Amino acid sequence: MPDFLRDLAASLSVGSLIADPAEMAPYCIDWRGRETGRARAVVRPDSVEAVAGVVRACAQAGVPVFPQGGNTGLCYGAVPADDGIVISLGRMSRIRSVNRSDNSLICDAGVLLANVHQAARQVGRQFPLHLGSEGTAQIGGLISTNAGGTGVLRYGPMRDLVLGLEVVLADGRLWQGLSTLRKDNTAYDLKHLFIGAEGTLGIITGAALKLLPAVRARADAWVAVDTPMAALELLGLCQDVFDTRIQAFELLSRSEVDITVATVPGARTPLSSPSAWSVLIELGDTDAQAPLNERLEEILAGAMESGVVRDAVVAQSMSQAASFWHLRHSVSEANKRHGISHTHDVAVPVSAVPAFIAAADAMLSASFPTAQSVIVAHLGDGNVHYIAMFSREAWAGIENPAQSVEDLQTAVHDIAARLGGSFSAEHGVGRKLVGEMARLTSPIELELLRSIKSTFDPTNHLNAGVLF
Amino acid sequence: MPDFLRDLAASLSVGSLIADPAEMAPYCIDWRGRETGRARAVVRPDSVEAVAGVVRACAQAGVPVFPQGGNTGLCYGAVPADDGIVISLGRMSRIRSVNRSDNSLICDAGVLLANVHQAARQVGRQFPLHLGSEGTAQIGGLISTNAGGTGVLRYGPMRDLVLGLEVVLADGRLWQGLSTLRKDNTAYDLKHLFIGAEGTLGIITGAALKLLPAVRARADAWVAVDTPMAALELLGLCQDVFDTRIQAFELLSRSEVDITVATVPGARTPLSSPSAWSVLIELGDTDAQAPLNERLEEILAGAMESGVVRDAVVAQSMSQAASFWHLRHSVSEANKRHGISHTHDVAVPVSAVPAFIAAADAMLSASFPTAQSVIVAHLGDGNVHYIAMFSREAWAGIENPAQSVEDLQTAVHDIAARLGGSFSAEHGVGRKLVGEMARLTSPIELELLRSIKSTFDPTNHLNAGVLF
Repeated sequence: MPDFLRDLAASLSVGSLIADPAEMAPYCIDWRGRETGRARAVVRPDSVEAVAGVVRACAQAGVPVFPQGGNTGLCYGAVPADDGIVISLGRMSRIRSVNRSDNSLICDAGVLLANVHQAARQVGRQFPLHLGSEGTAQIGGLISTNAGGTGVLRYGPMRDLVLGLEVVLADGRLWQGLSTLRKDNTAYDLKHLFIGAEGTLGIITGAALKLLPAVRARADAWVAVDTPMAALELLGLCQDVFDTRIQAFELLSRSEVDITVATVPGARTPLSSPSAWSVLIELGDTDAQAPLNERLEEILAGAMESGVVRDAVVAQSMSQAASFWHLRHSVSEANKRHGISHTHDVAVPVSAVPAFIAAADAMLSASFPTAQSVIVAHLGDGNVHYIAMFSREAWAGIENPAQSVEDLQTAVHDIAARLGGSFSAEHGVGRKLVGEMARLTSPIELELLRSIKSTFDPTNHLNAGVLF
Repeated sequence: MPDFLRDLAASLSVGSLIADPAEMAPYCIDWRGRETGRARAVVRPDSVEAVAGVVRACAQAGVPVFPQGGNTGLCYGAVPADDGIVISLGRMSRIRSVNRSDNSLICDAGVLLANVHQAARQVGRQFPLHLGSEGTAQIGGLISTNAGGTGVLRYGPMRDLVLGLEVVLADGRLWQGLSTLRKDNTAYDLKHLFIGAEGTLGIITGAALKLLPAVRARADAWVAVDTPMAALELLGLCQDVFDTRIQAFELLSRSEVDITVATVPGARTPLSSPSAWSVLIELGDTDAQAPLNERLEEILAGAMESGVVRDAVVAQSMSQAASFWHLRHSVSEANKRHGISHTHDVAVPVSAVPAFIAAADAMLSASFPTAQSVIVAHLGDGNVHYIAMFSREAWAGIENPAQSVEDLQTAVHDIAARLGGSFSAEHGVGRKLVGEMARLTSPIELELLRSIKSTFDPTNHLNAGVLF
């Protein structure tokens, strides 16, 4: 073991440094096995001081540092790209405090999202960020990627749920910003720089999170509409009455519903006749007495009378609601079973979703005539997962698959950009979209972003190759 | 007129530059007449390009620039301090677009807050930031100071209501970040740097704001409690049920209620016997059918049974609700009439409000025995306006008034800091609290803040003397 690693190992508690290639392997590949990196060593510090010590030693030796949480990202931001040190935060898993009066929870960065949920429940509160990987994803990584999930419409993304941060800076010093204050108007709000920075400005070691009152009443509806525009009108009607009680407003194309019903056991649509578009609505209220089902039925009946809605069913039981969500949660699995799917995670202004879908569909049928358009959108956020679906036979006939994937991505992102949209709504940039970041960001904005990076990490040794 | 000013005037539309001292005077003093500055000229550009041109010319000539909105701030952040150019944004008063589907409004920085309210109402939406100066305060200034107001508990401060910004940078270039996207996860979120920066990093020329559904049901209650701790318990009970329907949760000391009832015509408390502490609660719901009064009465009845609440009255009419709020809105005027009052705008974690009040009261009676403790708090935000009230006779007997004011401020801010609090919850730093900023911010944080300032404004010509 070279001197640097020996010194590093000696500075840490026993067993905190892994240098064996086989043991390092899981830390050097993304969870879907699509991107592989390499590392000199993996360290698993068990304290803020240990993280700071490793970063300081690496900074002094000029060794790159790659922070890693639960490694559940979709854009390879947690995969080491160079011969550096992976700092895995998983052993920093302590919930430091929970305060019901403050509606706050302070924890280490390595705490699992599911454990935060549990700790909040124990004081009669909730932490409202939910996503598929909540048993693996860590708070630090979720903050670094400004994770979204299914509750963004009501609660906002991770950025809106962070009160304060504790961060090891590029030189190993600690910025102590673990505030639980609701108001603090004293100069620039530093935490917002580290949120969504994907580990390029510092390593988050602790976080103060907002807790919220638990939801005690719920209503779910499956709604058939003819067009994305009709879905938008329905969203407006619901917002007028329900405001933040709308927890989800998901739009699915008929193709997506058909594929899911055909391939996933138990997935069925609650309406007898198929519709061009389906909307899944979920309402939630903290007041157990709130008559959500009745009010939702009234609103939907009005929308049917006025022709906005074709058909609708409000779940009459928990199990019926669960069946709606089973269909929605099965779409990724269904798409994988059905064929070769290429997914894009774009955002446009909410009002531009219909125009985006129309333009993307026109592009697809012109440039990729063998592909089918499959759409799942978080409509309330203007976030469209636009999926080009090929049958395995059709994909086998594509001459240059790698180039086609890139051309398709370019075309979809360009349409979003023309409508004032973003090429990455919720998944981040990571290493995967660095090219698109450079291509689609204005020169002035890129310059400002790079100047911030240089200010916080002048030698570019924190997660180099991510974002830029 | 010197060459620089002549060239500047020639580059602008006729009448955009004021160099006459009498005409400049209102731009060189804060609205309460407490702080006076001086300027070489005041310019009133009518376009983004004109703002950019002035900033570019000043940057090249090394002339300091002082942006100014409605000049309604409380910390002198809009008062020019040096022999520079005041850029007054008031002529940039165009609402550029309003979009009901996007729930967004795009406007010039110089638009009055009241005009944003009106434009939102016209599409059946609201912009929920409300404060006393809404007929004078401008959007750009409100963003630059991250203004609070009475709806923070429900809607957050200005920071939470901005979707995108357009900013003239220190060298006169334009950063175009006028996005209305709800999700965009592409590197650092630049807008959060300019929000609350008090004009030190760039000059905001345009903003994309969030609109929200209009509130159609309301309930107001006046509640007597024995202690701040009981008020906190009541807040928790209300949050459990009402969540974001709580629009205000204001705590007033008996001294404040007594002073207001005694000095302001028409101000009266709705409860027959006085109580040590009063809480004013306002609920709002977008659903016109929401039974807010009934539910609030039930919750308060339960709180009375369990001893948390001593007495309570839910307003039975709009005019009774208005009478509750007349008392609350009259406190500043009442304090001014009653004596010499010294106000502090601190925030502590919500759970620490009782400890803060106890410690501040103990300090006051020990160090300023002739002062009375008067308290108004936005309890749900942990934001306490702690007021030391002297009779005019008592104040006349203070030997060194300036030193006493400073000693008092130091003592109050130190107590907040010990509890993890902030010396400026909602009013900002400006020029007024630069000393406290330096004294109460950690060296590492100050270094980070200054490094951001240097990155965005290397020659320190944007609102120099503010914040640092």
